[in-house]
Amino acid sequence: MKRVRAIVLTSGGLDSATVLAMAHRSGRQCYALSFDYGQRHRSELAAAARVAGAFEGTVHKTVALDLRGIGGSALTDDAIEVPTQPTSGIPVTYVPARNTVFLSIALGWAEVVGAQEIHLGVNAVDYSGYPDCRPAFIEAFGNLAAVATKAGVEGNPVKICTPIIDMTKAEIISAGVELGLDYSMTVSCYQATESGVACGVCDSCRLRAQGFLDAGIKDPTHYV
Amino acid sequence: MKRVRAIVLTSGGLDSATVLAMAHRSGRQCYALSFDYGQRHRSELAAAARVAGAFEGTVHKTVALDLRGIGGSALTDDAIEVPTQPTSGIPVTYVPARNTVFLSIALGWAEVVGAQEIHLGVNAVDYSGYPDCRPAFIEAFGNLAAVATKAGVEGNPVKICTPIIDMTKAEIISAGVELGLDYSMTVSCYQATESGVACGVCDSCRLRAQGFLDAGIKDPTHYV
Repeated sequence: MKRVRAIVLTSGGLDSATVLAMAHRSGRQCYALSFDYGQRHRSELAAAARVAGAFEGTVHKTVALDLRGIGGSALTDDAIEVPTQPTSGIPVTYVPARNTVFLSIALGWAEVVGAQEIHLGVNAVDYSGYPDCRPAFIEAFGNLAAVATKAGVEGNPVKICTPIIDMTKAEIISAGVELGLDYSMTVSCYQATESGVACGVCDSCRLRAQGFLDAGIKDPTHYV
Repeated sequence: MKRVRAIVLTSGGLDSATVLAMAHRSGRQCYALSFDYGQRHRSELAAAARVAGAFEGTVHKTVALDLRGIGGSALTDDAIEVPTQPTSGIPVTYVPARNTVFLSIALGWAEVVGAQEIHLGVNAVDYSGYPDCRPAFIEAFGNLAAVATKAGVEGNPVKICTPIIDMTKAEIISAGVELGLDYSMTVSCYQATESGVACGVCDSCRLRAQGFLDAGIKDPTHYV
């Protein structure tokens, strides 16, 4: 039987690393996809390469696209500061339409390599309130994929898989540790240093640290 | 009353130039968006700049994204030749998920500048058989936009406008000429030279030439 091929969006962070570990363990041929989009926290790209390299046979690709030209987020515009305190509503770290853009490019790569699935680590429990991390968004993208491509038109639409969407951060971490995933490879911080050292105070750092705490697992993150 | 803001996908070709002319004439504040995606016919980028520059007050942006890394099309992979004869089915000039990717980035820019509309020159009559030029695709993208962004979540989803989707190539050309559009600025050819001279034999050239013929309008295209 032919192995299922899966594109796995791989940011270098904790969530997507867990999703890649799950897809790899299930026997899928994994195609890890990362984006050099002008993000503030560029050390996550090195982390993405480490993560992809940790799973044998995984093909890794980094696509360059310059979202700084569009701006509108603390992650792509140096003039907007990363908040270090909890905020209400959709935070300024939200990158307009980021997951839509990433999934679209994943859809294109899926078509080229003949992948039947796209996996991504969105999470709607311990998350930052981004609109494009919600189940309604994932469902709408699946509907789009069914009509957007050659495979879709021919009756084989790519499936959008979100294995951790209903898990808490602690559950994600526990699942990853059980799969042997070494989270010290990953970088979640929105303003990590070049060598991947985390600030410990941004939204993403706080969610991550709380997750390790709740899971009762030692936090291997390098903090400043 | 505040002017409606519209992102207009502007490739440098005939169709999108007509759409921009229509949006501009209707009084919209236009944001022309082009993509440097590694396309074979790079002279269309110069054409896009000429077209955007022809409509006063239009903001023009070119976003770089490297779709060559993904390949899978005669337009982004030099190893695949551009066909010069009609083919059946979806042609090799189809770029996997291209319109999905372009619309996604347009959606992000729309959110940043507060645009209420995205206009694009897809056409389902005299077209190349690409899946992402059909009404079903446009409708699915509209549904996605409604849940993908902050504006969508707040009840103001961006509207996807396809003013020429039901027009023949001849009708599009006639409409453009009536609006004073100078089509000699535009480049449609899939393998145009650096200075924008068209091959005259690719699918895109043939559709364009036939359109001028059917419209009874002199073809201003520079052919080799």
